[in-house]
Amino acid sequence: MFFSDFDNDLLLRQLSGNRLTVLYRLTGDENTAYSKAKDICTEQTVEFPDSLLPEGAIADQIVGKIEDFRNEKENSFLAAVSYAEEDAAGEFTQFLNVVFGNISIKRGIQVAGLVPGKNLLKIFPGPKFGIGGLRKILEIPQRPPLFTAVKPMGLSAAGLAKLTAQFAEGGIDIIKDDHGLSNQVFAPFEERVKRCAEAVGEANVRFNRKAVYVPNISAPFEELFDRVHRAKELGAGGVMISPGLTGFDTLRALAAAETGLPIIAHPTFLGSYVMDHSQGISSGVLFGTLMRLAGADATIFPNYGGRFPLTPDDCLEIVNACRSEQEDMPKIFPCPAGGMELKNIPDMLRHYGKDILILIGSGLFRLGNDLIANIRQFRELIAKE
Amino acid sequence: MFFSDFDNDLLLRQLSGNRLTVLYRLTGDENTAYSKAKDICTEQTVEFPDSLLPEGAIADQIVGKIEDFRNEKENSFLAAVSYAEEDAAGEFTQFLNVVFGNISIKRGIQVAGLVPGKNLLKIFPGPKFGIGGLRKILEIPQRPPLFTAVKPMGLSAAGLAKLTAQFAEGGIDIIKDDHGLSNQVFAPFEERVKRCAEAVGEANVRFNRKAVYVPNISAPFEELFDRVHRAKELGAGGVMISPGLTGFDTLRALAAAETGLPIIAHPTFLGSYVMDHSQGISSGVLFGTLMRLAGADATIFPNYGGRFPLTPDDCLEIVNACRSEQEDMPKIFPCPAGGMELKNIPDMLRHYGKDILILIGSGLFRLGNDLIANIRQFRELIAKE
Repeated sequence: MFFSDFDNDLLLRQLSGNRLTVLYRLTGDENTAYSKAKDICTEQTVEFPDSLLPEGAIADQIVGKIEDFRNEKENSFLAAVSYAEEDAAGEFTQFLNVVFGNISIKRGIQVAGLVPGKNLLKIFPGPKFGIGGLRKILEIPQRPPLFTAVKPMGLSAAGLAKLTAQFAEGGIDIIKDDHGLSNQVFAPFEERVKRCAEAVGEANVRFNRKAVYVPNISAPFEELFDRVHRAKELGAGGVMISPGLTGFDTLRALAAAETGLPIIAHPTFLGSYVMDHSQGISSGVLFGTLMRLAGADATIFPNYGGRFPLTPDDCLEIVNACRSEQEDMPKIFPCPAGGMELKNIPDMLRHYGKDILILIGSGLFRLGNDLIANIRQFRELIAKE
Repeated sequence: MFFSDFDNDLLLRQLSGNRLTVLYRLTGDENTAYSKAKDICTEQTVEFPDSLLPEGAIADQIVGKIEDFRNEKENSFLAAVSYAEEDAAGEFTQFLNVVFGNISIKRGIQVAGLVPGKNLLKIFPGPKFGIGGLRKILEIPQRPPLFTAVKPMGLSAAGLAKLTAQFAEGGIDIIKDDHGLSNQVFAPFEERVKRCAEAVGEANVRFNRKAVYVPNISAPFEELFDRVHRAKELGAGGVMISPGLTGFDTLRALAAAETGLPIIAHPTFLGSYVMDHSQGISSGVLFGTLMRLAGADATIFPNYGGRFPLTPDDCLEIVNACRSEQEDMPKIFPCPAGGMELKNIPDMLRHYGKDILILIGSGLFRLGNDLIANIRQFRELIAKE
């Protein structure tokens, strides 16, 4: 009655029929969980009472549809809800909004899986390099690349560059900024990137290495792309970004810009989505599926057995989401991290295989006073496995 | 020993001595909670073992300091941790990273309050309009402005504009897009904004109103500012953005750009931070303090008593954070929402006073078949209070 002019035929002509499907884990008994699924269909789309919607394609296609609903375990159900792909408007921002917008503020709902439709996969083609591209750049066909972080915050650009040189000399393949280094007065971005990239370049020549330096370019909106371009000019071999700080769409825009630099994603500020298995976004979807879809070539995640509380199952979900077969979409490197030490390596390799980046940060300093010797231990351990 | 070249005097000269202070709520017994506070000091800054840091200003000033630690209630402690302002590099992205970056991935830590230092407050000056500026634009000196959303998704631009005209005719002051309307094929941004802004303009003349139309400009990174400028050209009276989708820094950049349009912030996709009072970010800090600091002039939040699970205390925290006295920083409109109906209005006014926006969405449609008559009820209720 409010929408007497509604033109159902016009809307039908504008819908492709492709659907975006999200798997939700819903807490409660069967009735409660099913009510949640019904509510999601509306809350994530029209936000309007069913009984007042005009008949036709809004109710039938724009509103979410429950495609499957099943019991998973006691007090937990899985609902597959599909949406018209057009609801997401071909935008990563609005895509996230359809997947988990307002319902992020409701209890007992977790995004446990997602499958974009055909058109969205064309619009979000994912990573430009992936595992294959990164291995080619590093000239490492098989073994896991060695990865570390330059820190601590508070050192000067010269001090950080000196460490970077030692990392490259010792045999680290990818040397990234700690994710808290941005443009602090004591190690400004430009000077830091220049000095660190030069240090790596020199060590590569002197010690016959192929190491790359990857600066952190999580930065203010207005400056982010300038930093990326400047990093490239100064010799960076990739960039690191934290989508929790910049927004996921910034990662997507960075990949779409095809700067020629591989992208490593960092999980900072995103933890609240994964702290509770009954709500939020599953670790696999957040640190795996979404990072890959948005265009990361590698995704750092907080591995079990270190400083962070993810479980082995959470971590395996992430690894699988990074490396699942997806037509046309490159697989990406999962990168278990967060307080890893050399002693964790055999376990990582056994569980995840060799297509991972192995990030040892302060663990390299804890091994003894000679950093180069410590890195040699790291290298030999990987070579041996 | 790793940092023999560390120049402590240089670093000291680069630090202003100003501190950024964060209040953390920590779960556990006293020892556990205190250990968490100590861990935060390191995790959020140097991510490096204390015992291996060079002596001097890194350990003393860059690393966080516990300024206060006290028992709050059983199994819950409050720790005030201060950081050198320079850790945040004058960037909203890195500021969020210092406040709650990696520790977002640890259990039992909630950001319960924050006080940026002097320099950060100059860099993040907050809203351009605030309550006073918005009231001036709307020519409403005292009563709460009436606020609604145009929906449902699936209507054409013409259909949405027709509703918008009725809202303005009825007497709604601020008419915003539903937060899920972006650039869908059935109501493209440009056409929707043009038609809706025109509809409001015509109704304003015909019915002697001062209503404004506020489009949603949450959009891809590359297009967002174009949409803002286009919205202005087409006659929008403000813009709405969802920092959960675009990143908080995009809100900050939008306010800094001084487009002349007030900004309304929407809470979508941010719920996981507030679902559990023992971790994440408190509702007051997330929907109040951070939105205001980043430059929102009004912040929509999920009010208690509607479809969302926030408590009255959570909501009061948000309202207080929006309107607390802060030297030089305008107060902003809190906007209780999320399934509000006319019957909730007396309660909102009693608890929050008149400096709020009152957002009734589909509640306006539920009152009866005559939308204009329904809005009249809304208006009369506000006039009476």
